[in-house]
Amino acid sequence: MIRIAIDGMGGDHAPKISAKGVLLATKNNPDLHCVVFGDETLLRPLLGDANRVSIVHTKDKISMNEKAAIEAMRRDKTSSLSLAMQAVVSGDCQAIVSAGATGAMVAGAHLLLKRIKGMKRTALMPVLHTKGHVKLLLDVGANIETKPEHLVQYAYAASIYAQAVLGVESPRVGLLNNGTEAGKGRELEQAAYELLKAESNLNFVGNVEAKEFFTSDVHVYVTDGYTGNAVLKATEGTLSRFSSALKTEIKASKLAMLGALLMKRSLKNVKQYFEVATGAILLGVNGPVIKAHGSSSDEEFASAIEQGYQVAKGDVISKLKAVLESEESE
Amino acid sequence: MIRIAIDGMGGDHAPKISAKGVLLATKNNPDLHCVVFGDETLLRPLLGDANRVSIVHTKDKISMNEKAAIEAMRRDKTSSLSLAMQAVVSGDCQAIVSAGATGAMVAGAHLLLKRIKGMKRTALMPVLHTKGHVKLLLDVGANIETKPEHLVQYAYAASIYAQAVLGVESPRVGLLNNGTEAGKGRELEQAAYELLKAESNLNFVGNVEAKEFFTSDVHVYVTDGYTGNAVLKATEGTLSRFSSALKTEIKASKLAMLGALLMKRSLKNVKQYFEVATGAILLGVNGPVIKAHGSSSDEEFASAIEQGYQVAKGDVISKLKAVLESEESE
Repeated sequence: MIRIAIDGMGGDHAPKISAKGVLLATKNNPDLHCVVFGDETLLRPLLGDANRVSIVHTKDKISMNEKAAIEAMRRDKTSSLSLAMQAVVSGDCQAIVSAGATGAMVAGAHLLLKRIKGMKRTALMPVLHTKGHVKLLLDVGANIETKPEHLVQYAYAASIYAQAVLGVESPRVGLLNNGTEAGKGRELEQAAYELLKAESNLNFVGNVEAKEFFTSDVHVYVTDGYTGNAVLKATEGTLSRFSSALKTEIKASKLAMLGALLMKRSLKNVKQYFEVATGAILLGVNGPVIKAHGSSSDEEFASAIEQGYQVAKGDVISKLKAVLESEESE
Repeated sequence: MIRIAIDGMGGDHAPKISAKGVLLATKNNPDLHCVVFGDETLLRPLLGDANRVSIVHTKDKISMNEKAAIEAMRRDKTSSLSLAMQAVVSGDCQAIVSAGATGAMVAGAHLLLKRIKGMKRTALMPVLHTKGHVKLLLDVGANIETKPEHLVQYAYAASIYAQAVLGVESPRVGLLNNGTEAGKGRELEQAAYELLKAESNLNFVGNVEAKEFFTSDVHVYVTDGYTGNAVLKATEGTLSRFSSALKTEIKASKLAMLGALLMKRSLKNVKQYFEVATGAILLGVNGPVIKAHGSSSDEEFASAIEQGYQVAKGDVISKLKAVLESEESE
């Protein structure tokens, strides 16, 4: 049985969505047990007496306001997020999932789970599904200033994830850069390129430009947290603007509204080209930490739980530790 | 009369598109004269004896391959791009427009026009039209490592452009950052934020995230050339992927094809939300240098010419020089 710690009170629509997600995920996975941390008076009516679901009651929760959340993680050890994280530290659970504030999760993970020995920086990695092809982008903001050797560790961590969770035998690793030729980029990219090229255990394919993100066959895109964050947000902003523009223009014409009705399935299919189907994982701490989107639907929250379950089952953290240890002993 | 130097041989579809663009732009602007540099045997049949259009013959041209292009600018002074640039240096023309390789234009501008005294770095700035609102993003790649004080100069240069060319009285300036609160970002953004805030002659409105790029009311977005390049390319890649996904899905169903026919005008209108209607300008050298997209249509190339014409008419370079001089004397 895999036990996952759930922050029942994190996210824009908690505890409703987190409870629904828990019920969905446990139903789909017979060897998954969810331990839900949060206000039992709110959670019990939503969860009932479902199999393989238990509740650990606490009234405290972390605010979605990021700045206050980091301080709260340091101060308040009885919040749903803190208790869930502690359950992974103690070994009672094998992963933690929350839709709460990113800053609080990252701070809490560093504080409680602690960085893996030998891992110099952690990285936040969203998993993007683009029409059958899965893309891992890291770091998107756990650290904003990064050294070349950190990018190499990111590449290993993501490659292990791709192998163990996604079943990709030899994940292709690309360095996000402002041109494809060797020698492109800042000092960071130039040095990282040489380091990545020298790693015979990585399938490094060279530089990749942000404009190729959706069409290239690269699985892992490494970059510093500042750039990764900017690229991810630019992508989100463009998608959201395209969708809203389309809606506005369709509503402006009766003919277009009829057309959109005929195109309904096609428009829905287009979404599959850009899906962020699961959560983002914080790589580099002593346990799988999965961040679901704050505005996750119940299906999306269930996917994030299943992601935590797969990372635990795939033994991603132990495998990463083994690589870091062999690196150190070299 | 405003005289614009045109690199007749730059771009993917030269000289056909450049000649058509010249004819369009001169027709629309009675006090515009285009001096077209390139192979007269190819250009004359396309340009005929049009009014206010002259040809300066040269057989040499710069390759679209960026690396070779930079070397060629240094070596080959008789290429169409080099001669056009020299016409601005001599004062015969007031601006230069080319759809050739960006690297060659930037190198050539530094070599021949030279950086404005007091301007510490140049910046490449595309002009994006998003449904009536114009956005200026800089730098997108003239320099990839930038200091805080460079971003302040970028903000001034772009604000002058917005006032003189776009008629925006008090352009709102934002610092591209990974969060909106003060104190966000790397050392670069943290220091630039304080410097920008202290400039009473700038209308600095604070940090802006890349995801707000299309929806915010900010006119000028300043960032380093590496990040600006990544954000612009992520946006381009997302748009291109969305368009191609939509096409693929429409083609897969007869019903959807009919729907798309009814939505034809709406789909076309959506493009207006993302238009890059004119060229990118290289700010910081002693003359207006306009880079049209390599695959420009004739209308787009004409727009780039009109942009050069407006920058010359609006006296953008002299105004920037005046600001830099007053800065220096402080």
